[in-house]
Amino acid sequence: MALPKTVDWQGDALTGRMVIIEQTKLPHKLELLELTELDPTIEAIARLAVRGAPALGVAGAYGAVLALRTGQGNAGLDRLANARPTAVNLGWAVDRVSRAAEGDPERALIEAKAIHADDVRTCRAIGEHGAALIEEGFGVLTHCNAGALATGGMGTALAPMYVAHEQGRKFRVFADETRPLLQGARLTSFELSENGVDVTVIADSMSPVVMREGKLNLVITGADRVARNGDAANKIGTYGVALHARTHGLPFYIAAPKSTFDANLESGAGIPIEERNPDELRLLGDSQTAPPGVKVYNPAFDVTPAELIAGYITEDGILNSDELADWLK
Amino acid sequence: MALPKTVDWQGDALTGRMVIIEQTKLPHKLELLELTELDPTIEAIARLAVRGAPALGVAGAYGAVLALRTGQGNAGLDRLANARPTAVNLGWAVDRVSRAAEGDPERALIEAKAIHADDVRTCRAIGEHGAALIEEGFGVLTHCNAGALATGGMGTALAPMYVAHEQGRKFRVFADETRPLLQGARLTSFELSENGVDVTVIADSMSPVVMREGKLNLVITGADRVARNGDAANKIGTYGVALHARTHGLPFYIAAPKSTFDANLESGAGIPIEERNPDELRLLGDSQTAPPGVKVYNPAFDVTPAELIAGYITEDGILNSDELADWLK
Repeated sequence: MALPKTVDWQGDALTGRMVIIEQTKLPHKLELLELTELDPTIEAIARLAVRGAPALGVAGAYGAVLALRTGQGNAGLDRLANARPTAVNLGWAVDRVSRAAEGDPERALIEAKAIHADDVRTCRAIGEHGAALIEEGFGVLTHCNAGALATGGMGTALAPMYVAHEQGRKFRVFADETRPLLQGARLTSFELSENGVDVTVIADSMSPVVMREGKLNLVITGADRVARNGDAANKIGTYGVALHARTHGLPFYIAAPKSTFDANLESGAGIPIEERNPDELRLLGDSQTAPPGVKVYNPAFDVTPAELIAGYITEDGILNSDELADWLK
Repeated sequence: MALPKTVDWQGDALTGRMVIIEQTKLPHKLELLELTELDPTIEAIARLAVRGAPALGVAGAYGAVLALRTGQGNAGLDRLANARPTAVNLGWAVDRVSRAAEGDPERALIEAKAIHADDVRTCRAIGEHGAALIEEGFGVLTHCNAGALATGGMGTALAPMYVAHEQGRKFRVFADETRPLLQGARLTSFELSENGVDVTVIADSMSPVVMREGKLNLVITGADRVARNGDAANKIGTYGVALHARTHGLPFYIAAPKSTFDANLESGAGIPIEERNPDELRLLGDSQTAPPGVKVYNPAFDVTPAELIAGYITEDGILNSDELADWLK
């Protein structure tokens, strides 16, 4: 992997810093952002400078170290855990670090580093299991970015592609650009091409055409939260892709670590959907993409029902929805 | 209608000019472009300063006047007719004007003005027929822009909305932003809101979510070309919208004048699909939306099969696909 780490910690617990790739600047500039205080960390998470469920877990873990060493206690940890409402990993990691630390930043950093190392291993395991689905000559569609830039390791949805590429198979990835924030165009195409994987960007509305033309064999996306019955919340547009995959006879897989699955959530109906700033659809850089005052509906996620999902690529293998409840016990 | 005419002619045949709304500047600036020569006209058509099948017909008609008065003969008329490969109206109008003119620009202008007046009447008739589909309280989805900005009159897909609005009904329009060129966000939301219709912009990938949430009752889009069997070529993304409409039990209508139907074309398989510049997906204004060299697939249109289309809203009424062949005889 040719890129710096998406989230990392440099130095010791009391004087060190979290360092993240500033993803809002990609693909024009590869810029690192150093974080030594809680508030800029919460702000960076809220404006998607670091994003993707597993990377948010690692960022939350290191962020908890910052909260503890500046004595911001439970109120600070709560604000950090809720910097993004939909991602379960963030709250989970903050909670795990604060329990292990018992107020001690040194112990917090040890726990945060363990979470990070776990994530690296988990991504690799997802990649190994999922790579078996990608045959020589295949076309694979993905939506949004669930890659190295979304995790502490080699990604979730993109990990099978990285492992299949390591194993020498030739295949082609189509990346939905993923409006409004263009994570597919900016991030997925960037990291796949930097790492030597053949990738083609399409607009989100083109995937059914690419499917009908016979250029695709399977779809793999990540998830932000999966319920016990298999319903999966992921970036807006995933539900539409899953419907198109079913219409065109292609299997649709979710790749996600166990930490993304919520055993306490019966179905997708219980997943809160964040509505984001309407200006995400009215402005792009300096360009006015829609009239200034126009009404916008901008849900950040949608829920794909389990019936549209062929399997869940996890660190423990590829499961189907019937197997989830037992696996999560 | 509060806006200037999308395409118009000012002055006489020998010294007058075609005046168009420069649509690439919308919604930030309402700018008019004056055309007195053939080459800038072809260039304006190619870069979508004027777009939409019926407006291309009117622009082609007035463009033929310019070609004839500058003595550019059949070669010039051919280049004009082929400035956009998919739209049948352009070639049809150039041909009709050049036949009627027999080389005389004065007669050409009379014919071009007749085409323009026909278009105004046709749009109004489409609006009157289609308005009956829009009931009080309905939600209506449209994709791309087939409105006043796409025609010489009040539009095709948007005409039923304008007439239903005139008739005093309250309803809500959702406008797909329509990547890559954002005609829905820039143009449809602009002209509907300028004319008092309640409109909400969504990203293209959100339409199945809005459908599942029960906010929509029907879909109306335009078409660039319809085959005799009812297969319809329209802006990329239309096929996906039609599939989602079927999945969610909503009727999907095409609104188009008879001139958009190609009686000689048996099915959609014969419709050539223009592939446009990859930079449309790599750049937006000054923003790099994808890495500079990344591969892009950018078909400008897709074909929606007749089986997904509930009806064709035309100037002669709402037809179904079985009725098209007779109507086109």
